[in-house]
Amino acid sequence: MAKEVIDPWSSELPDDYRKKIKQFGLEKFEVNDFPNPNLLMRRGIVFAGRDLKRISKSIKEKKKFYVLTGIMPTADKLHFGTKSVIDQVVYFQKQGAETHVLVADLESAATRGISLEEARRRALDIHIPCYIALGLDPKKTKFYFQSENNDVTSLAYVLSRRATLNEYRAIYGNPEPSRIMASVLQVADIMHPQLKEPMPGIIPVGLDQDPHIRLSRDIASRAKEFKFFTPSSINHKFLPALTGDLKMSKSEGNSLYLLDSDDEIKRKVSRALTGGQKTLAEHKEKGGDPSKDMIFELFKQHLIEDDAELALREKDYRAGKILDSENKAYATELLQKYMADFRKKYADARKIVKKMFD
Amino acid sequence: MAKEVIDPWSSELPDDYRKKIKQFGLEKFEVNDFPNPNLLMRRGIVFAGRDLKRISKSIKEKKKFYVLTGIMPTADKLHFGTKSVIDQVVYFQKQGAETHVLVADLESAATRGISLEEARRRALDIHIPCYIALGLDPKKTKFYFQSENNDVTSLAYVLSRRATLNEYRAIYGNPEPSRIMASVLQVADIMHPQLKEPMPGIIPVGLDQDPHIRLSRDIASRAKEFKFFTPSSINHKFLPALTGDLKMSKSEGNSLYLLDSDDEIKRKVSRALTGGQKTLAEHKEKGGDPSKDMIFELFKQHLIEDDAELALREKDYRAGKILDSENKAYATELLQKYMADFRKKYADARKIVKKMFD
Repeated sequence: MAKEVIDPWSSELPDDYRKKIKQFGLEKFEVNDFPNPNLLMRRGIVFAGRDLKRISKSIKEKKKFYVLTGIMPTADKLHFGTKSVIDQVVYFQKQGAETHVLVADLESAATRGISLEEARRRALDIHIPCYIALGLDPKKTKFYFQSENNDVTSLAYVLSRRATLNEYRAIYGNPEPSRIMASVLQVADIMHPQLKEPMPGIIPVGLDQDPHIRLSRDIASRAKEFKFFTPSSINHKFLPALTGDLKMSKSEGNSLYLLDSDDEIKRKVSRALTGGQKTLAEHKEKGGDPSKDMIFELFKQHLIEDDAELALREKDYRAGKILDSENKAYATELLQKYMADFRKKYADARKIVKKMFD
Repeated sequence: MAKEVIDPWSSELPDDYRKKIKQFGLEKFEVNDFPNPNLLMRRGIVFAGRDLKRISKSIKEKKKFYVLTGIMPTADKLHFGTKSVIDQVVYFQKQGAETHVLVADLESAATRGISLEEARRRALDIHIPCYIALGLDPKKTKFYFQSENNDVTSLAYVLSRRATLNEYRAIYGNPEPSRIMASVLQVADIMHPQLKEPMPGIIPVGLDQDPHIRLSRDIASRAKEFKFFTPSSINHKFLPALTGDLKMSKSEGNSLYLLDSDDEIKRKVSRALTGGQKTLAEHKEKGGDPSKDMIFELFKQHLIEDDAELALREKDYRAGKILDSENKAYATELLQKYMADFRKKYADARKIVKKMFD
């Protein structure tokens, strides 16, 4: 599927995103609807979704709902942008959501040729421990492998009746059988928590995943025998790569990864695209533009929790009082601190995962 | 898929079948290659296949091989033609084949909308007991449900990489997702006995199923990592309906069913299409044509085991010494006797199945 080109940098909702909301038929995310909004919600990183009121209502009325996300074990390390997704999952888990995390081992076998054994190894060694280290409560999270979940694999066949080749063509062009199978399975993943009892569910996704959500919603609403709630979705802006590339990608080398070493952090941050001026004198005179600055993007999305501190830093940067070098030094410090803590949590999580799956 | 129009009546291999062998790229079945040939093999009902030498070699050298067939739980009774398939499976089981019988519950859910529960009920109440009553040894047969066999459902995703939309189009026109999913799953069913150890396998099928066999062979040979033997197939002619319709069908009303009552047998046989002449006088003078006679088809395929007895009866019919009414009375008697025995075996088999799946 062609990636939608969107500007993920501005703290305001830019025209690009406004257009997408209209074009995709999304709802704008209303931060006031959700109790205890997290940093991504407060700062407009989370900006849209589908059937969001159903979820905020479930939270407020303490009714059952679920959140679901997937692990695609194509990579053997996680880029930092994954944190944005898990931050959302953690948010909904804390608001009472049943939490499902699937390892898309059948999907990665079908579409990428990753063996089930390799997918399992990566999930257990890296992805699941990282997800726990990012804040998921292992006791409250149902992790599963597609290859081991008969409810899901069976549901995929049942739901396949409700899909048409034409809608797959609309999404994928001429979809190969592997693509169709993986996609129907994804719909089954998304819907299966409702097999025992229909309830609202929310799926945090980037905009590029919206066609899958639409497909799931269409198929779910056609399969009337299940009385499914159509799944809700919540969209966040991409975390751009530090070099300013549109999106951190699992397969690119210029991304910041969870578990990067202190040296790697320092090197990557030093090369980051900034919103500063070309010369020091010019910067002090004209100031920098935080909306074009990858360091500020990190501050905003992940590193500075305090809204007032962030606002002050932005103001000072715009005024030319803070230099790129200072920003980078601070980002490196915060990141290294974050990563030190993360590595510890990851080591603990590995032990937990070992016990869980032994 | 459009049904191939073929004449299943003649005891000789007719031109139609010869053409199909050439057109489909099949091998002619050589009865002398196989020890202890069964009635269907001896009488040319079994007429072709693919990679048959690999199987006869396995039998002669007492090497591992397997036979596999499926239960499509779309119907709640089995037509008599199913016996032809199971006769073959029983033959290979007796020659030492590992025997796999799958219940295509996911396939019937995807393509026919049969619920998994209904499919299970039909399989356990009707199909599996009938298969055992037809001679399968329950101790030597691995029965499984697709929905419960992770090896199979997972293999389908792995193998889907080796399938192309174009080849599905060639078989199915514009295949809906459900059709693609069911078909890839069928390939996984056919290949999964080789997951632990590659070995030859044979699948008894009607000619209309040959495209599935070709697809399985293509996909198996592309998935080099598994070192699969391409599956062998063995083709038999259809058992026509008693009224002379081309093929006994699970969905037609004019078929003879396993478990039909004595009255139903009598009624259906009385209406059978015969090769006799229009008047008694003409019949006695010109004789009948057993090759166009549905009663003889039953004698040949199922009811008269003794080749000499069959040959004599054919000769006498041709000579006008045996009348249609006599043939029908004899067929009714043999069928009622067969069915009485079958019902007893079926009742016993139900108890066995209850124990197996409880």
